[in-house]
Amino acid sequence: MADLTLYAMPSSGNSYKVQLLLALLGRDYTQVACEYGTPALAQAKATGALPFGKLPALHIGDGTILSESGAILWYLAQGTDWIPTDPLAQAEMLAWMFFEQNRIESVIAVRAALRCYPHRAADATPDRLAALLTEGNVLLTIVEDQLASRDWLVGKAPSLADIAVYGYVHTAGSRGGHSMEPYPAIARWCARLEALPGHVPLQATP
Amino acid sequence: MADLTLYAMPSSGNSYKVQLLLALLGRDYTQVACEYGTPALAQAKATGALPFGKLPALHIGDGTILSESGAILWYLAQGTDWIPTDPLAQAEMLAWMFFEQNRIESVIAVRAALRCYPHRAADATPDRLAALLTEGNVLLTIVEDQLASRDWLVGKAPSLADIAVYGYVHTAGSRGGHSMEPYPAIARWCARLEALPGHVPLQATP
Repeated sequence: MADLTLYAMPSSGNSYKVQLLLALLGRDYTQVACEYGTPALAQAKATGALPFGKLPALHIGDGTILSESGAILWYLAQGTDWIPTDPLAQAEMLAWMFFEQNRIESVIAVRAALRCYPHRAADATPDRLAALLTEGNVLLTIVEDQLASRDWLVGKAPSLADIAVYGYVHTAGSRGGHSMEPYPAIARWCARLEALPGHVPLQATP
Repeated sequence: MADLTLYAMPSSGNSYKVQLLLALLGRDYTQVACEYGTPALAQAKATGALPFGKLPALHIGDGTILSESGAILWYLAQGTDWIPTDPLAQAEMLAWMFFEQNRIESVIAVRAALRCYPHRAADATPDRLAALLTEGNVLLTIVEDQLASRDWLVGKAPSLADIAVYGYVHTAGSRGGHSMEPYPAIARWCARLEALPGHVPLQATP
């Protein structure tokens, strides 16, 4: 298998998704930590290590650079049980992954970032935080409803959908300030993920 | 093949991506048009036709409902040339699709919506439009750079990545108010897509 170097932001849910899958798969890799505001991040951007200007980015031994956490998860999980083989189940898994990047990340992760990253504090107006809280609860309810009668988001086994959605949802309370009491199915699902052999926690706080 | 019913917003780039792929594939389907502000959209939401609360949603003959344009594209294109078979190329295709949903849609499509949909006009402050213009030009430059030396975003043939990115980028000038002069490679790529047999235009203006 190819040598892997992961450019990652240790405090970021998007980077964490990839770190978590690598740990669950027991894959070795080298990490280049690029926390917000560090020279390492500036250098990574300046040297073309981040083609989309974003973290994470996976550098594969042959010189290929793969961007976007969802696409990196897809690449790493090829041929493993983390991707269902049924075409419809694959599409349902991708639906949760796109939903996460389009909605959950832009609402729940943004509210958490506004609250926790010092450089975002100026944008953390009460009106904006309140709007994101309301919208975030709508999104958490969609996840809760899906998990109310099932262990995993798609099918009967964990898939990339669970890793992708867990990335930011599991800190919606601690970082985002959401009351998680209305979401007991999400709490049970987080506990199931955290009990998987190889699970690792988020590396750093903002 | 299963009967397909597409719940779609005729003026929306996300719905258009699916309509375009269906046309390029020559697939028959029934459309339920749910334009913004219409009773049809309210009814679709009220009856559970949109599990993620969003359009498009594809209803498949067996009762399955698939959300998220990217996931619907994936489902419909299974086994066709629109998805490359190489695992790395698949991941690169998905990277553009995630990038589109996470960044292009939240910047370029949002600016277009603020300018064109009457119900968004109150949010279209000069500061917000200016910030989105600046950020949108960064994103258009990433697409332009990729297309400067190649015909399609991934590999040597059109893929779902092209359809997904084209969905909102082809109206970045007309709806978003971006000057497209700095992006000649994007213009040539749009023309290539528009010359494909079966290409259809966006169904409606906001």
